[in-house]
Amino acid sequence: MSEVDVLTKLAAVLESRKSADPTSSYVASLYNKGTDTILKKLGEEATETVIAGKGGNRDEIIYETADLWFHSLVLLAHNDISPQVILDELDRRFGLSGIEEKENRGNQ
Amino acid sequence: MSEVDVLTKLAAVLESRKSADPTSSYVASLYNKGTDTILKKLGEEATETVIAGKGGNRDEIIYETADLWFHSLVLLAHNDISPQVILDELDRRFGLSGIEEKENRGNQ
Amino acid sequence: MSEVDVLTKLAAVLESRKSADPTSSYVASLYNKGTDTILKKLGEEATETVIAGKGGNRDEIIYETADLWFHSLVLLAHNDISPQVILDELDRRFGLSGIEEKENRGNQ
Amino acid sequence: MSEVDVLTKLAAVLESRKSADPTSSYVASLYNKGTDTILKKLGEEATETVIAGKGGNRDEIIYETADLWFHSLVLLAHNDISPQVILDELDRRFGLSGIEEKENRGNQ
Repeated sequence: MSEVDVLTKLAAVLESRKSADPTSSYVASLYNKGTDTILKKLGEEATETVIAGKGGNRDEIIYETADLWFHSLVLLAHNDISPQVILDELDRRFGLSGIEEKENRGNQ
Repeated sequence: MSEVDVLTKLAAVLESRKSADPTSSYVASLYNKGTDTILKKLGEEATETVIAGKGGNRDEIIYETADLWFHSLVLLAHNDISPQVILDELDRRFGLSGIEEKENRGNQ
Repeated sequence: MSEVDVLTKLAAVLESRKSADPTSSYVASLYNKGTDTILKKLGEEATETVIAGKGGNRDEIIYETADLWFHSLVLLAHNDISPQVILDELDRRFGLSGIEEKENRGNQ
Repeated sequence: MSEVDVLTKLAAVLESRKSADPTSSYVASLYNKGTDTILKKLGEEATETVIAGKGGNRDEIIYETADLWFHSLVLLAHNDISPQVILDELDRRFGLSGIEEKENRGNQ
């Protein structure tokens, strides 16, 4: 499956979970618990990615990065933001002035 | 530009920075400083995404999530992992047993 | 110097920085930039402590934990909360029902 | 109870948990699960402190900061580092060259 399909389809699944029963769906339970719980999960997954990155185990880095992306997609869905918007933002930085702008920011 | 192009092209740019002069490229300077600096940046961007998510400003959430994805792509590049691998992992969880497996994990 | 003196005196220094020139004092510049900057620094230091903890270098753990405590004291000062309040909270959990309550929370 | 007693006594409790049954003690279960679990908890509590700090609720800031300090003390105990060592480090920065050194670091 192409990359666009993965993100688009996953975003569609996350959107559909907004009307699911919180007791039967992990994502629906996150929405139900609210913003703080979603942000806490994002922070947890970021910490686990840092731990995996420091450990240097390739499989763990892949697993934790997938978890981090997944929960950032939940945060986006919770705020009605499509992943395409993030890709457009990266494209804007990358294609036009982005990377260079970033590069010039120095040791931020 | 389609989503696949953004991630693939950005990964290519990040790969090319491995041979760039650390004093003239932000990404090359991250590689040069090493794993700890890359992980520190990832943690910073995760914290800023949490702050933006708690603040609820849409533009800030977009900006910080893009920064978070960008630096997670730097971590992947630093470990010679293509973003496609993460998308494949999400696809595996999502298309086959993923979301359900995740859903069944309960309040992890 | 006894422990009580360190925290009490450091809190007094942090309080005094509230009226200092932001261009000449690091702490005053944090207050001046506001809550988000203080929280970002706290997240940074937490990430660095995690990296140090994973690395296992004793000196780095000490250095980063001191940085983490320092910036949590800045957050407390910014919210007019004395470190004694945190110690009282720990004492309450510890001396009366705290640790046991904590212990009984299970895998939170 | 004075501040010194809280940290010293809490450190003693944490030390005693090293020989406790992991199934009956929260702290013993953290030691038993190992470094990654302790670091994950530290990252979680840091994220929760950031969320509380952004939310601005005094009681939540106190509660989450106490949790953050508690788990940083667990990390210290896990590495056989006394909290006095951290206070000495803060004292060194504070009493001699510390704050000034920190102040002079600029916008780090």
